[in-house]
Amino acid sequence: MSFEENKIRLTLAYDGSDFSGWQKQKGEVATVQGCLEAALKKIFGEPVRVIGSSRTDAGVHAIHQVAHFKSPRDPKKINLLKALNALTPESVVVREVLAAPDDFHAIASTERKTYKYFIFNHELPNPFRRQFTTWIPRTLDIDFLNQATGYLLGSHDFTSFQSRGSEPPSAVRRIDQADWHKRSRNLISFQITGSGFLKQMVRNIVGTALDLYFHQREASDMAKILESRSRQQAGTTAPPQGLYLWRIYYPKDLDNKCRKLYM
Amino acid sequence: MSFEENKIRLTLAYDGSDFSGWQKQKGEVATVQGCLEAALKKIFGEPVRVIGSSRTDAGVHAIHQVAHFKSPRDPKKINLLKALNALTPESVVVREVLAAPDDFHAIASTERKTYKYFIFNHELPNPFRRQFTTWIPRTLDIDFLNQATGYLLGSHDFTSFQSRGSEPPSAVRRIDQADWHKRSRNLISFQITGSGFLKQMVRNIVGTALDLYFHQREASDMAKILESRSRQQAGTTAPPQGLYLWRIYYPKDLDNKCRKLYM
Repeated sequence: MSFEENKIRLTLAYDGSDFSGWQKQKGEVATVQGCLEAALKKIFGEPVRVIGSSRTDAGVHAIHQVAHFKSPRDPKKINLLKALNALTPESVVVREVLAAPDDFHAIASTERKTYKYFIFNHELPNPFRRQFTTWIPRTLDIDFLNQATGYLLGSHDFTSFQSRGSEPPSAVRRIDQADWHKRSRNLISFQITGSGFLKQMVRNIVGTALDLYFHQREASDMAKILESRSRQQAGTTAPPQGLYLWRIYYPKDLDNKCRKLYM
Repeated sequence: MSFEENKIRLTLAYDGSDFSGWQKQKGEVATVQGCLEAALKKIFGEPVRVIGSSRTDAGVHAIHQVAHFKSPRDPKKINLLKALNALTPESVVVREVLAAPDDFHAIASTERKTYKYFIFNHELPNPFRRQFTTWIPRTLDIDFLNQATGYLLGSHDFTSFQSRGSEPPSAVRRIDQADWHKRSRNLISFQITGSGFLKQMVRNIVGTALDLYFHQREASDMAKILESRSRQQAGTTAPPQGLYLWRIYYPKDLDNKCRKLYM
């Protein structure tokens, strides 16, 4: 284990409402990566590249995003948690700063990810939740939705649930868990954990499950859609504001090699 | 009881973040009253004046604001709930539309009001609560805060807690309840109910109680500040984003005379 390269691991939370997603873009576009790199440039006086585990879309939130960067100087000499939180907008909060071993990589080391999707289910919308849930006034059947997404468990080719753009070589992913819950009278959540997710895969799964229910199709049609490997067979992409990157899991031994930077 | 004047009573919820408060102002300023009146003008084709029970400040939220207006035409011919929700921004939700008796007045008929103030109490801020709570990283003592605001119960002259601007003839108000609660690990609330509140009175009470605690003064100093009838003796005005107009109470017999407009 070496810390020669001063690799830093960040845990972040952000309200995605004001951002055009995680990934830095050309022009005057607000992105999470962009505002972190701007803050690090101010701190270190030179450009620093930040790698995020998940490229969340515009409007998508994160409770627990993980990113890494190589500190150009000894990171122990700066309170990076305080400095980053002072220099980034209020919609981004750096929750933890760790010294990571050289072999830690925010994307490549990822073992599993959990996303959650929240639906505000009431006849009237809630003004306080409009950027943080998707409003659906019609009643939903949790059992039906659980049955439909149950067909996705295991390893499959998820081409049907992949939006266009930056397709990886393989569309095979493993889904370990996909559960719908009624959390309170008006709040429904969908929690999905897996080896990784294709572009807009969670939103396409949520949108398709809801479409099946609203169009009074069979829950087992989910299996047919999955097998078809055709995006055209699946349903609409659920809106971004209900989606949260909830947790990123790394191998335990890699977690154990990370160290707090300050006592 | 007569409904000749087509008096309509509205119950509203709004996220105050994007508004310069309830009250309509000159120029291109977003206000809750302004956007309701604009929607009613589109519906009825003529100007309609909306009277709100509380003139909430910029950034202050409402779970249950009450307003009234006189419908220029038979309100039964329009689904006002749907029409108003379609024509107002997503940050305002009309929760209920009632036909009210002529003697109902959103301000004059008010019997009691409840406000709540929410504090996010954690060392790091929460990006999802930044517009909906006030972030205080230092630990708070609920018992001390309860002791301090306990001195305000009963009828008193609240001049010490009144901000400048639109002073009413009397500053005497009756406080029936003033309680601090720890609602969850990181969330603290203050609930206050009374006959009515002066300009920024709740925020001045919250700010003063917190100042007493932070400056290690006695809880009983609250009584001295109240008795001084001097705004200079009290503390700072707590920020608006933690404050919610929670409930407005009218006499039971007046409530009972209100009718649903549609079956």
